[in-house]
Amino acid sequence: MTVNANYLPGFRVKTASRGDIDPKMLRVNAERLREDFEALAEIDATAEGGIDRVALSGGDLDARLWLAERIEDIGLTLCDDDAANLGGIYPAETQDARTLLVGSHLDSVPDGGRYDGAVGIVAALECMRILVENKIQLPVNLELIDFTDDEGTWHSLFGARALAGILPPDVTNEARTENAPFCAALGRVGLSLRDVPRARRIPNTLAGYVELHIEHGTRLENAGASIGVVTGIVGRTTYEVIFHGQAGHSGTTDMYKRRDALRGAAQFIVRAHEMVRARYGDGIFNCGDIQVEPGKYNIIPSKACLIVECRHISETLMSEMEIAMIQIARECAASHGLTVEIEPKIHMPAAAMAADFIEAIEASCDALGLSYTQLASYAGHAAQALSQIMPCGMIFIPSVGGVGHSPLEFTPWEDIVKGANTLLQTILRVAFA
Amino acid sequence: MTVNANYLPGFRVKTASRGDIDPKMLRVNAERLREDFEALAEIDATAEGGIDRVALSGGDLDARLWLAERIEDIGLTLCDDDAANLGGIYPAETQDARTLLVGSHLDSVPDGGRYDGAVGIVAALECMRILVENKIQLPVNLELIDFTDDEGTWHSLFGARALAGILPPDVTNEARTENAPFCAALGRVGLSLRDVPRARRIPNTLAGYVELHIEHGTRLENAGASIGVVTGIVGRTTYEVIFHGQAGHSGTTDMYKRRDALRGAAQFIVRAHEMVRARYGDGIFNCGDIQVEPGKYNIIPSKACLIVECRHISETLMSEMEIAMIQIARECAASHGLTVEIEPKIHMPAAAMAADFIEAIEASCDALGLSYTQLASYAGHAAQALSQIMPCGMIFIPSVGGVGHSPLEFTPWEDIVKGANTLLQTILRVAFA
Repeated sequence: MTVNANYLPGFRVKTASRGDIDPKMLRVNAERLREDFEALAEIDATAEGGIDRVALSGGDLDARLWLAERIEDIGLTLCDDDAANLGGIYPAETQDARTLLVGSHLDSVPDGGRYDGAVGIVAALECMRILVENKIQLPVNLELIDFTDDEGTWHSLFGARALAGILPPDVTNEARTENAPFCAALGRVGLSLRDVPRARRIPNTLAGYVELHIEHGTRLENAGASIGVVTGIVGRTTYEVIFHGQAGHSGTTDMYKRRDALRGAAQFIVRAHEMVRARYGDGIFNCGDIQVEPGKYNIIPSKACLIVECRHISETLMSEMEIAMIQIARECAASHGLTVEIEPKIHMPAAAMAADFIEAIEASCDALGLSYTQLASYAGHAAQALSQIMPCGMIFIPSVGGVGHSPLEFTPWEDIVKGANTLLQTILRVAFA
Repeated sequence: MTVNANYLPGFRVKTASRGDIDPKMLRVNAERLREDFEALAEIDATAEGGIDRVALSGGDLDARLWLAERIEDIGLTLCDDDAANLGGIYPAETQDARTLLVGSHLDSVPDGGRYDGAVGIVAALECMRILVENKIQLPVNLELIDFTDDEGTWHSLFGARALAGILPPDVTNEARTENAPFCAALGRVGLSLRDVPRARRIPNTLAGYVELHIEHGTRLENAGASIGVVTGIVGRTTYEVIFHGQAGHSGTTDMYKRRDALRGAAQFIVRAHEMVRARYGDGIFNCGDIQVEPGKYNIIPSKACLIVECRHISETLMSEMEIAMIQIARECAASHGLTVEIEPKIHMPAAAMAADFIEAIEASCDALGLSYTQLASYAGHAAQALSQIMPCGMIFIPSVGGVGHSPLEFTPWEDIVKGANTLLQTILRVAFA
C-alpha cells in the first residue's frame, strides 16, 4: 500500500510484509550477480576465455539446467514453450495482468564470448531476485526469458520469431529433409518441430520486452557513456549469391575465353564493399563465406557460392543498397561470362524501439546518475522480432574495443552492474507505467 | 637385313621372318585403335560422357588391368615399378640397348574427359602392336608406360617425377601423417611409399620419351594444323596464400577497423589476374579454391586460405611474375590490416623438348603429309619431369574448342589417327637415329 509520488506518477509498490519501499533505492546485489555470471561462463568455457555453447548443444542444455535451478531457487514459476524458450514467471497481483518479458539468450556463436547474451540473462535473474526478495508486487506478470537459438546456429532469432509468430512455415515443416538435424536437436529438449507454432503469444497479453546486452560496437566507448539507449535495430537481409562459370584446364584454356566463377565473385566482393562504403555510410555489407567448385588448384572454378548480408537502419536505404548490390553481382557476372543466382534467405526488417521504453530507460539513467546516449543497434536481437507484436526496449553497455562474437569480448564489471541497475529501474518504470 | 636409305640415314629394319619392310609405309590400324579407345572410355564413364578415374581409384585399377591384358595380348613383357608406373617392353635386339619410353596416363581429373591421357595410351599400345606384328627389330628397348597420378590427385606428375628421381623426400616419408591416405592408396596396388625412390631410372639407360596428347587449348585449332610439335612445357608454381584477419560481429564492428580476411583475399584475386593479363601476356594465374574461416554469414572472416598457381614458358618471366604476385598479396593484406603467409608448394621448372625429337616429329609429319605447327604446352605433362634426365618429345592433336579437364573434351577420330601415325613414325625415327 505504497505511494512514491516523486518516483513516477502512479508508481505504486505494494509489499506483503514490510512497509513502504522506495523503489528507486532498489539496487542489484553486485556480488551475487557476479557469482551467477562466473558460474554461467564456466559452462562450455574455451581455453581462450570465451564460450562455445551453440544452441541445443550439450553446453546449452547444461546452461538451461543451470538457469532452471536458479529460477526455482528464487521461487519463480519455471516455464518453457514449444520453441524451447525457457523462463520463470513472477506473477502479478491480478489474474488478467499482461506479461512483461525480460531476458536475453544463453546460446553463443561458435567460439564466442562470455558476455554476449549471458549478461542479459544473469541481470534479468538478479532483477527478479531483488523484486521477489523485496516482495514488490507488480501490476504485470514479470517473465524472465532465455530465447532459443538467438545466434542462429539453426535459425537466426528462432525463439523470438516463434514467440512473435513470424517464423516462415518452411522452418517448422518436418517433411523437409533439411530440417531433420534441427528436428533432432529439438528432440534433445523433448520438443517437436511441428509444435513450434504453438509458441506464438497473443499480443494483447504482452506488456513488452526489455533486454540488457553488450554493445558489440565502439559507439558507447567512443561517446564515453555508460548506457546506450537503443532507438532501433538495423534491418538485415541475408542472400545466397551463386556465380556459375565453366571448369577448364587452368593452364591451357584460352585466357580471353575463361569463365572463372571465382574471379567474378572476387570482383563482386570488392565492388560491393566499395559501393556500400562510398554511398551508404551507415550501411553494412559482409561476405562471410565462399564455397568454390571444383576447388582444385589447376582447374578454373566453375562455381562460387557466397553468403552475404546487408544491414541498414533505414528500410528505404536498405532496399536501395540491396538493389545496388544485386546490380553489381550482375555486372561482375556479365564481365566474366558468368551467370548469377541471387536468392534472399532471411529478411528481418529494421525495428524501432518503443518511445515509452526509451523514456523509461533514460529516466532510470537520470535517477541512477548514469551517462547515456541514444544509438541504433547494428546487431540483430530478439527485440527486432518481438517489436512486431509488442513494445520493446534495449539497454546497451560497452564492450571494450567493440569486440563481439569473439572470445576477446570484455566488459568491466562495474559497467555490468550499472547496466543491471538500469534494467531493474526500467522494469519498475515500465511495469508501473 | 634391311636398308631404306631414303627414309633416314642409317635407318635399318631387320625382320625375323619377312623380307625388307619399308618403315615409312607402316600405319596404325585405325579400327583396332578405336576399339581400344572406346573400351578404355567405358571404364568409370560418367553420365556426361566423360570419365571420373582419379589415380589409384577402383576405376584406375580396372583401367590398369585392362591395359595389362592388352600388353600381354600383344606379347610384350609386362612390367611395373615401385611408383606403380605400368607398362610393357618390346626388347631390343641387343642386351645393352637403351630404352625409349612411349606412353601417357590412364588416370583423369575428377569429372574429366575421355581423351586426356587415354589417347596417348591407346596410340602407344597400337604403335607397339604394329611393330610387333611386323616383327620390326629396334635398336632400343621400346617401353610403353602409364604414369601413375599424372593429374595430381595425390601428387602432380607423381609417377614421372619418381622415375626421374625428383620427388621431394617429404612425399615418400611414411612417417608423415598427411601421407597416410596415399600410403593406403598405393597399398591397393601392393606398393609401399618408402619403396617409391626405387622407381628412379639411371639416365644413361634411357633413350628418351615420346607422348601423344590432346592440346587442351585452341592454338592448333586456330592455326588449322593437324599436329602440334611441342617445343617446351610451361613452368608452374603452386602457392598456398593465407590471409589472416580478425573475426568479429559483422553488424557492429567498426566499419573502418575491420580486418576482413576475405575482403583482402578478393582484392588479391582481382589484382593478381589483372597484373598477369596486363604485364605477362603469355603468363597464367589461377586461383582454384578458397577456404574461409569461420565461414558464417554474420561473422567477419578471420582467415582466407587460397590455392593459386602461376605458369609461364620463360623461367625468368615466371620468377618476375611470382614476385609481382607476392607483392600484390602483401599490399592487399596491408590495406585491410591483415597478415599474409605465402608458401610455394610445388615448382615445376619450364622444360624444353629435345631438338632431335622435334625434328623427328616434323620429319614424320612431312612424310605423312600432315600440317603441323610448333607450340608451347601450357599444361604440365610427364615430359616436364622426364626432360630433367632424358630427351623428350610431345605430339599434340587438337581438342575441339580447346576444352580440357572436362567431360566436354572432344577430338575428331581422324585427328587421333593422324596423331597415332605421327607417333609411330616418330618412334621409328628416334629409335633408328
